[in-house]
Amino acid sequence: MSEKIGIAIVGCGTVGGATAKLLTEDIAFINKRSGANLELTALVDRDVEPLTRAGLDPALLQPEFQTVLDNRDIRIVVELVGGLTIAKQFIEKALKAGKHVVTANKALLAHYGEELFALARKNGVSIGFEASCGGGIPIIKALTDGLLANRIDAFFGIVNGTCNYILTEMTEKGQSYREALKGAQKRGLAEADPTLDVNGMDSAHKLTIMSSLAYGEQVKLDRLTVEGIDNLESMDIQMGRELGYVVKLLAAARKTDEGLDLFVAPCFISTDHPLARVSGPFNAISVYGHAVGHTMYYGRGAGGSPTASAVAADILALALGITQSGFNSLTFWPDLTPEAVLIDREKSVNRYYLRLVTEDKPGVVAKITTLLSQKGISISSMIQRETQEPVTVVITTHEAAAGDIATILEALEKLPEIREKPICLRIMEEHSENID
Amino acid sequence: MSEKIGIAIVGCGTVGGATAKLLTEDIAFINKRSGANLELTALVDRDVEPLTRAGLDPALLQPEFQTVLDNRDIRIVVELVGGLTIAKQFIEKALKAGKHVVTANKALLAHYGEELFALARKNGVSIGFEASCGGGIPIIKALTDGLLANRIDAFFGIVNGTCNYILTEMTEKGQSYREALKGAQKRGLAEADPTLDVNGMDSAHKLTIMSSLAYGEQVKLDRLTVEGIDNLESMDIQMGRELGYVVKLLAAARKTDEGLDLFVAPCFISTDHPLARVSGPFNAISVYGHAVGHTMYYGRGAGGSPTASAVAADILALALGITQSGFNSLTFWPDLTPEAVLIDREKSVNRYYLRLVTEDKPGVVAKITTLLSQKGISISSMIQRETQEPVTVVITTHEAAAGDIATILEALEKLPEIREKPICLRIMEEHSENID
Repeated sequence: MSEKIGIAIVGCGTVGGATAKLLTEDIAFINKRSGANLELTALVDRDVEPLTRAGLDPALLQPEFQTVLDNRDIRIVVELVGGLTIAKQFIEKALKAGKHVVTANKALLAHYGEELFALARKNGVSIGFEASCGGGIPIIKALTDGLLANRIDAFFGIVNGTCNYILTEMTEKGQSYREALKGAQKRGLAEADPTLDVNGMDSAHKLTIMSSLAYGEQVKLDRLTVEGIDNLESMDIQMGRELGYVVKLLAAARKTDEGLDLFVAPCFISTDHPLARVSGPFNAISVYGHAVGHTMYYGRGAGGSPTASAVAADILALALGITQSGFNSLTFWPDLTPEAVLIDREKSVNRYYLRLVTEDKPGVVAKITTLLSQKGISISSMIQRETQEPVTVVITTHEAAAGDIATILEALEKLPEIREKPICLRIMEEHSENID
Repeated sequence: MSEKIGIAIVGCGTVGGATAKLLTEDIAFINKRSGANLELTALVDRDVEPLTRAGLDPALLQPEFQTVLDNRDIRIVVELVGGLTIAKQFIEKALKAGKHVVTANKALLAHYGEELFALARKNGVSIGFEASCGGGIPIIKALTDGLLANRIDAFFGIVNGTCNYILTEMTEKGQSYREALKGAQKRGLAEADPTLDVNGMDSAHKLTIMSSLAYGEQVKLDRLTVEGIDNLESMDIQMGRELGYVVKLLAAARKTDEGLDLFVAPCFISTDHPLARVSGPFNAISVYGHAVGHTMYYGRGAGGSPTASAVAADILALALGITQSGFNSLTFWPDLTPEAVLIDREKSVNRYYLRLVTEDKPGVVAKITTLLSQKGISISSMIQRETQEPVTVVITTHEAAAGDIATILEALEKLPEIREKPICLRIMEEHSENID
């Protein structure tokens, strides 16, 4: 029997409660399968109520974190409080006390990854954070282990289940953004204040973490281009559908000769792409390696039990010494890498979808297409709806730089025939596989 | 700088050549990223010709395997010869010489996994075999690491790219099996002798390996139910399509109260399931964990460069000591586990698709449906094509035991109105997620 490894979970919310349940109800199975000897020793919370609600033994409650720090049998501290303030203090104290840390806190890692990893290294311990990106999907493992011999040409994915649920409802049921958001809130799939999800910031946190690992460069959160789904209109979802596209909120990373191109934005993606079929609360990430080609990882992006699966995998990888081996040898951790070189936002090259609402006058389309061609932007397809005034014109472009598109949008908006602010969305093309 | 780890690759075929290229052209990148200090020391082959053809340094050639065994700097031997005879000898010699082994040889592991793992353990070394299942997809990692805290309720997947290419062509272009096979051979996606692929045996090898790990029970290859795609008719593919299904050759595993239900067979799967969209040479495996719910892993299932990606990941995991940690602690390796308890083949419960060719006489359908209801088999849908004689009747059933379906098929075949041997295919239902 291997040495007993005590575990303390801090925070008995949805994920904390589910992790505690997994590590009590299934502990015999988990220890037998892994050969580890885990024991959930303490659950740190202010009150016993969340424990009893989750059906957990109240005797697990430990209101004093210091007691956890003083307990030498507790080797792993699992931070599931969330947020940027007390969560950081819990983690810092645990690392300083020589305890490994497991966390699902993407915001904290996106803001303070460098600092926390350096602190862990200084104290000879490691940090596991599989649960921070993609819920139960082992995407961190894939990037840091399964695809380790690959240069990552690109990756992009759906990493926020709230947004994906809302977009799926808008797409499949023709709901407006407001209606779909309300439905998500009713089903517990969106917070009362959904801002961090719907404005793209949660996806940006995850993009920061994943791209830093994938490229071995430290990506700063505030340098990302981030758009949410809160301004999406159902009309564009329907128009996209006619063109063979689905709208998904994507966190995207591409390696270019001039630096990394990183953004979070609602994008059209071909219905033929595997990500197009990822619906409801599911997440999925497509990763394009220079040797492996296209791979994709799919699963539930949130929720107590799926996230607990990732947290428990991290705990086991620490118990087996696997995380430590990677932490000590691999060179792409945030405390070891230089700041990332990003391309100028204006230089991000994409295909675009433009929707214009114009007066029904002769020569309007000629004016629009002339403007585009003057900027060297080539039209891929155009639809003019046979409706009464105002007329809707939808244009998809071939590849164009974001800066050129921005200039065009400004110019278009100034045309006297244009009735509304033009709508512009990226079209995410299938990334080409560079394999032989 | 960490200690130099010499690597010898045995066999310079498609995968061996691609792995050697990856470990020479990209070695600086790989060592920098991983912190390892790998060096490709030798490529064992009879002749220099495959090396020069692959653009590799002829000085890597080492025709004498004994020289590799004697070289103490070579710590990892990569077996990429394939087959069951000399490959086994290479591996045994390497293990006895205290060298770790990496292999992509699914047939060998399916037949001799127990023996080879025991030999490795006896000699204090480990075996990496990510490339044996799903080409470049890190599915072994997912089962043994990312999903380690999960009881696997079920998994099923497309693990043979040749079959998937053939089925995709039959589905999308209406080709016959023969036409599609010829096309695959032309494109190098099927061997001149495609037997092992199309009869399902290659998928069975992979199912043996994956199910042994997933369930911690040793699955014997000869106990699996295995059907190939070589008898599939394009008519059934088209009929399935009308019913909302796609045909895929699935390797499937389900945990039941009476034992494991394991089979390889062409199955109908709903077009809504993520596996339905996996086309051409791609592979994908859906895994249902009791905590994580449904996860899926997608990528190229074969080919030099994608498989080399998995081989290189195994080499790195050995160089970092990660494989050894798992090999020494985890308890589900084939040399440590009891023989699997499988359910009787007759008890495998599935939904079924039946196609009958009958005379156009009154009362035929009544006879058929009466037979089904006498066996307690409930009809889910029925289509009778408005054609001239003979009449095609397609029935989909609710869940039924394989044994009952076999009895029914016998009885149906004996009806005087039935013109041809009835066609019967499984319908793979979405496995329910057991998560809270």
